Amino acid sequence: MIAQRLIARKRDGGRIAPGEWREFANGVAAGTVPDYQSAALLMACFLNGLDRAETAALTEAMLGSGDRLQLTHLGVPRVDKHSTGGVGDKVSILLAPIIASLGVAVPMMSGRGLGHTGGTLDKLESIPGFRTDLPLADAISQLELLGCALIGQTGEIAPADRKLYALRNATATVESIPLIAASIMSKKLAEGLTGLVLDVKRGSGAFLPEVDRGLELAKTMIALGDDHGCPVTVLVTAMDRPLGRACGNALEIEESILGLRGEGPDDLMEVTYALGAEMLLLAGVVSSRDEALQVQRDAVASGRAAEKFAQIVEAQGGNPGVVDDPAVLPQAPYSRLLTAPRDGIVARVEPRTVGEGIVAMCGGRTRVEDAIDPAAGYVITARPGDHVSRGAPLAAVHASDLDLLERGMDALRRAITIADELETPPLPLISHRVTLAGVEEWHDGR
Amino acid sequence: MIAQRLIARKRDGGRIAPGEWREFANGVAAGTVPDYQSAALLMACFLNGLDRAETAALTEAMLGSGDRLQLTHLGVPRVDKHSTGGVGDKVSILLAPIIASLGVAVPMMSGRGLGHTGGTLDKLESIPGFRTDLPLADAISQLELLGCALIGQTGEIAPADRKLYALRNATATVESIPLIAASIMSKKLAEGLTGLVLDVKRGSGAFLPEVDRGLELAKTMIALGDDHGCPVTVLVTAMDRPLGRACGNALEIEESILGLRGEGPDDLMEVTYALGAEMLLLAGVVSSRDEALQVQRDAVASGRAAEKFAQIVEAQGGNPGVVDDPAVLPQAPYSRLLTAPRDGIVARVEPRTVGEGIVAMCGGRTRVEDAIDPAAGYVITARPGDHVSRGAPLAAVHASDLDLLERGMDALRRAITIADELETPPLPLISHRVTLAGVEEWHDGR
Repeated sequence: MIAQRLIARKRDGGRIAPGEWREFANGVAAGTVPDYQSAALLMACFLNGLDRAETAALTEAMLGSGDRLQLTHLGVPRVDKHSTGGVGDKVSILLAPIIASLGVAVPMMSGRGLGHTGGTLDKLESIPGFRTDLPLADAISQLELLGCALIGQTGEIAPADRKLYALRNATATVESIPLIAASIMSKKLAEGLTGLVLDVKRGSGAFLPEVDRGLELAKTMIALGDDHGCPVTVLVTAMDRPLGRACGNALEIEESILGLRGEGPDDLMEVTYALGAEMLLLAGVVSSRDEALQVQRDAVASGRAAEKFAQIVEAQGGNPGVVDDPAVLPQAPYSRLLTAPRDGIVARVEPRTVGEGIVAMCGGRTRVEDAIDPAAGYVITARPGDHVSRGAPLAAVHASDLDLLERGMDALRRAITIADELETPPLPLISHRVTLAGVEEWHDGR
Repeated sequence: MIAQRLIARKRDGGRIAPGEWREFANGVAAGTVPDYQSAALLMACFLNGLDRAETAALTEAMLGSGDRLQLTHLGVPRVDKHSTGGVGDKVSILLAPIIASLGVAVPMMSGRGLGHTGGTLDKLESIPGFRTDLPLADAISQLELLGCALIGQTGEIAPADRKLYALRNATATVESIPLIAASIMSKKLAEGLTGLVLDVKRGSGAFLPEVDRGLELAKTMIALGDDHGCPVTVLVTAMDRPLGRACGNALEIEESILGLRGEGPDDLMEVTYALGAEMLLLAGVVSSRDEALQVQRDAVASGRAAEKFAQIVEAQGGNPGVVDDPAVLPQAPYSRLLTAPRDGIVARVEPRTVGEGIVAMCGGRTRVEDAIDPAAGYVITARPGDHVSRGAPLAAVHASDLDLLERGMDALRRAITIADELETPPLPLISHRVTLAGVEEWHDGR
């Protein structure tokens, strides 16, 4: 029995060879390795680590346990963007249509929300009729037609990762750099990309709050991409507060549509355009960052990005009218404002507590099988550093009944701190850019 | 969900409180904690350890997950003996009838063989008809009548340990001192004992080969006994070679019967009587070690010990004729002698390889659900330090077909080394005696 031998070796700090990882991943995918053995191996990996070669071998093994998208016939660059997860992070929903409208294919495979972080699939599914469970063949047809498909990880893609990812959530083995890197990259490398942009979050709402660990994760994923000839660019962005104002599935779709119309909040648009510029640079369709920023703004201003989004929504079974009238999204019957309890400065908007508040209102999930209420959430207008007077509105809460609303209010009150001064200065919105060449610090306008 | 929180805490080197261990153990026993979460917690415990208080709490929690034997009405001392496991270790089979014939109750709950070590239950079941799966009520009746019952861990006794023990075997988390100590003591404390003698093995065939770790295990188990008012005496004995000559289930029963008739090999009888003396001293039925040794020899010489064994066999459904005629035991159809390939000294009889050879002949198991061939095994007459001439017999192999016989011969050839001199001097047969008062080195005749 292979698994037991590998567990014992990793337990004792030893190394696992590529062929052994392959046998293990295939066993996981086929169901011949029982979950309890995978769980023990995951914990041993978490505590004793994987070196660079093992991380590459595990990635390769999980990738090889399933199919890959064959997209070279599209004849255009194929670039995706992935985030390590945050609160209010709806950037993928803006970027996919913006970049696709600029002649680059975006085969975007996303995940669901779990714990305090949201998931792109859940957000998209708040659009009435929208389907994310397209078979790969349909996704490929849509990519040929529209240059973009927004889908979930099917059973055909990295099935070993799919099982191990679910186990990691249940066994407290999530926050491991090699395991995170291998999981993300095994899926992304299956998309048949010519380039990949990653948004690595830092700060209290990120899975890896410390920037040093975020940079290590960035370098690990860049190296894994390089192994497969897929150039990777990483931006490190702030998750010490939510991104944008809307937090919650339907509310975030509404804010994304505002963004596609040129009316999004500044922080959201800055991160979106910065990541989009890296996608366009990797795709080789622009010659400079300035040009990349300009063509994105034009795509938005001209309405082409919003139009592309409407086409994608329609192709995936959703109501394209959502782009003109976000009121077709589910609306929560109960809403309430949170106002400032005193004069002062907004010292903190804690993203983890915000995320937990959404879960408390049934807008997120603690277990993979939980159903969610797409309408529940927050619109938080207060930003760290804002001066506020007593009674000024800080945020709105939306929920499906008064009891849930109260739970959401409780979490929000804990999340937002009004004080005499900032506890700590907010993190820079974008702090680092990482490529195979190394780490650069990011400066305004870069 | 309790398990996930405990996993994360132990993963990060934190402590788990008694009430949490209780909730976990009850969840394991009830099946509400899934195996994959238990497996992850076991690996985190293996790698990050349990302190003294946590080990006590885990023991208490596993003990409390099931029933305890109520035996005070017997009106006699109740003492058991347990070994940490070895090759050729049939001491329990001799001691139970010897000590029971001396007026001390022996409620002995044993285990099955797994990996390279044998198990008392498997050995007993090689006696035609012998049943070890008595319900607790029947075991108590037999204790009232005969002062001894030889049974397996029923579903009623420490069910949490039962599940976790099986998981530990499958997830390479066996060799952990706190986990071994808690597992053994949760079962033994359920026997309602007034004293317990433990045989902690050291050397290459032991689960914990290093004597320092064996002593640590001994002290841990003594402290756990003390928590429950059960005095524990430990002898540390050699497992750098098999104990006695017979290795394999039916062959070991045959050798045990020889021992009960006063014809057992010296090393086996020395360990048996030394452990038996500790049992009698704990029971308070003798006033000195010399007296304890003498009454045991008398019990054997008078035939009372063999008679007691016959009564136990009969009471548990077995053929009591085995005591007079071991030929009623299953016999392997194929046998072969291994002879010395050269002149020299027996430098090594490696117990782990011997045990693996028995497994290779289907006389042991690698998975809990494996069936076994009771007749397969070895009779190894060569002892480390013996001078041998080329062609002299070293051991006999017994198997059910020629292919298995060949596999057994291969292992035996690897297990027995003939050289010009001893590789390392054999370990002293008994090296330490450990009680709550501390560790004493053992000297011949003590």
